[in-house]
Amino acid sequence: MARSPSRAPQRLTAVRRYLEALQVNAILVTFLPHVRWLTGFSGSNACCIIRKSSAALITDGRYRTQAKEEVHGFKIFIAATSIFEELKVRRLISRSARVGYNPSVLRVGELENLKLLFPTVRFVKVRNFIDDLVSIKDETEIRKIRKAVSISDAVFRSVLPLIKPGASELDIAAEIVYQHRRRGAEADAFEPIVASGLRGALPHARATVKRIARGELVTLDFGCRYEGYHSDMTRTVAVGKPASRLRRIYDAVHKAQQRAVDAARPGMKGSDLDSVARKSIASAGFARFFPHSLGHGLGLQVHESPRLSALSTDVLQEGQVVTLEPGIYVPGVGGVRIEDDVVIRHWGAEVLTTAPKDLMIL
Amino acid sequence: MARSPSRAPQRLTAVRRYLEALQVNAILVTFLPHVRWLTGFSGSNACCIIRKSSAALITDGRYRTQAKEEVHGFKIFIAATSIFEELKVRRLISRSARVGYNPSVLRVGELENLKLLFPTVRFVKVRNFIDDLVSIKDETEIRKIRKAVSISDAVFRSVLPLIKPGASELDIAAEIVYQHRRRGAEADAFEPIVASGLRGALPHARATVKRIARGELVTLDFGCRYEGYHSDMTRTVAVGKPASRLRRIYDAVHKAQQRAVDAARPGMKGSDLDSVARKSIASAGFARFFPHSLGHGLGLQVHESPRLSALSTDVLQEGQVVTLEPGIYVPGVGGVRIEDDVVIRHWGAEVLTTAPKDLMIL
Repeated sequence: MARSPSRAPQRLTAVRRYLEALQVNAILVTFLPHVRWLTGFSGSNACCIIRKSSAALITDGRYRTQAKEEVHGFKIFIAATSIFEELKVRRLISRSARVGYNPSVLRVGELENLKLLFPTVRFVKVRNFIDDLVSIKDETEIRKIRKAVSISDAVFRSVLPLIKPGASELDIAAEIVYQHRRRGAEADAFEPIVASGLRGALPHARATVKRIARGELVTLDFGCRYEGYHSDMTRTVAVGKPASRLRRIYDAVHKAQQRAVDAARPGMKGSDLDSVARKSIASAGFARFFPHSLGHGLGLQVHESPRLSALSTDVLQEGQVVTLEPGIYVPGVGGVRIEDDVVIRHWGAEVLTTAPKDLMIL
Repeated sequence: MARSPSRAPQRLTAVRRYLEALQVNAILVTFLPHVRWLTGFSGSNACCIIRKSSAALITDGRYRTQAKEEVHGFKIFIAATSIFEELKVRRLISRSARVGYNPSVLRVGELENLKLLFPTVRFVKVRNFIDDLVSIKDETEIRKIRKAVSISDAVFRSVLPLIKPGASELDIAAEIVYQHRRRGAEADAFEPIVASGLRGALPHARATVKRIARGELVTLDFGCRYEGYHSDMTRTVAVGKPASRLRRIYDAVHKAQQRAVDAARPGMKGSDLDSVARKSIASAGFARFFPHSLGHGLGLQVHESPRLSALSTDVLQEGQVVTLEPGIYVPGVGGVRIEDDVVIRHWGAEVLTTAPKDLMIL
């Protein structure tokens, strides 16, 4: 179980700074990763209400003990019925308040429910500023991500001997999830992807009963959680010597990925970094086979700000942790993806993932 | 990878029947488990638009190949930018349409985005009727759930030898997730709960590095996914002879769980079934230590309709699959939960979970 972050008071202060700028009396936080970032609470049902002079976490009876253990600096309320009802019962929102909420997470029905419970309150959309705050990691957070990355790196090495003709994708996924926990991870970041041969052309294939054959490429995309923070890595390996066409695909992805690593720096737009990798892949003739974005922020969520895509207007900042994961997927042929987790430093990208990127022929 | 359900055409027909009753020209489905139920598509980004004469699935470029493999009976569109933009580009919503959406899943920002894209369209809230349709399983679905349950049952038996003094909770969680995949599951239904000793008083404790000691109870709550469908089971076992107080807690939960199994039948309100277990626990003197609901529907989601809680107005129907999982959690003492998955049949509850419920002393 993760302990409450020691940075919780600074984070609360950082959020409170927005009360005035956004012209609201309170900010309602319903998105669980944001609740966790603010309070340390890791349960599955909660919201926070933050006012100038008070801050409260509301959860339900299942989490009475856990909330007391995890949360400091917030008053804790256990909802008798629903967490929104409890806001009313406990008078945590004053009758004439303007309350800011995040429209990208609050559901239409939830907003209606709030308006029914608080007919005199103005609920106002505010931009998702917590995403921006969350994206900048302090060194304590980076240490947790680094640990999660090192666990996954070790797991990658430990499963290599299993990747051979006749092994099923699920056998390898089973070993990944087992080794994650044996090496101290709390959980997988997501269900491991193990995609061999033609299935490598499905960017988000899960592991199946398919057995690996000689000459195939195998893409492994997996990650874990350590004290709430995630790793996310991808490597593509060859089982026996691959056909020259697959080798060309591999080299194109490898080059594009390395170019992205070399180019990343604070102040750069997410779309520009995406473009570095995309142009590299295009110059190798595979432009139309890279159908996803270059990467994404990583932290308490597996996917968070900033976005590194062709349309992203996010600007990279020091302290952000992002994935760099170009891929090429050719239907009927196969696919390759290579993904590192990197910290944006003032001088560029510090690569956390240590697994080799030269093609491994097993 | 799950194949598209053979029942997809009937499901589409069932949804279309609501067009007239709800007085809409189209129904927009954005909730992924509903998209999967309707179309067979198992990717992570998609929506459907269902009209009288056409039905379309919109996803993104990562899923081009996968969507073709999984989806039948729907036109497939690959979004150039966002899936909602694609609705506009492909003119999948006519200018004067009334389009029904589910306010309990659509986000405020998504609705605004839709209104901007389609200024002449009326977007109207419709009740969550798909939840009701999804809750009634056909025999093909029940077969998949039964298979998922049997995998988890076998995993329970296989981890019993590991539950002994000195083993950590994470060691046991590692074995559960490994064995799930070795026995053919696609994934875990959720991160396994392994809670020993005093941690058993946290209803939703995850596994930690804590080591098991003699005399402790250990609660294991886990499940897996098979062809998209889930299992969810809980057993509490004793490591060595437990204190008489723990034994009394166990017996109270066991009795309450069995009473719920015996009472369940079609036509019964969810709140009434919850009450059967709750009264049983209260009569043993533990009323205030059962802080959660009795159970929930189970299928493509781990938690779905119907709800079995004190406030539930859902009425049990033949073909629904639900969990029955009362628990008692006494801070500073420990906890017990016992959970079966059952199918509601015309004659009562068919219990799918086969692991013993008499207290096992390991």
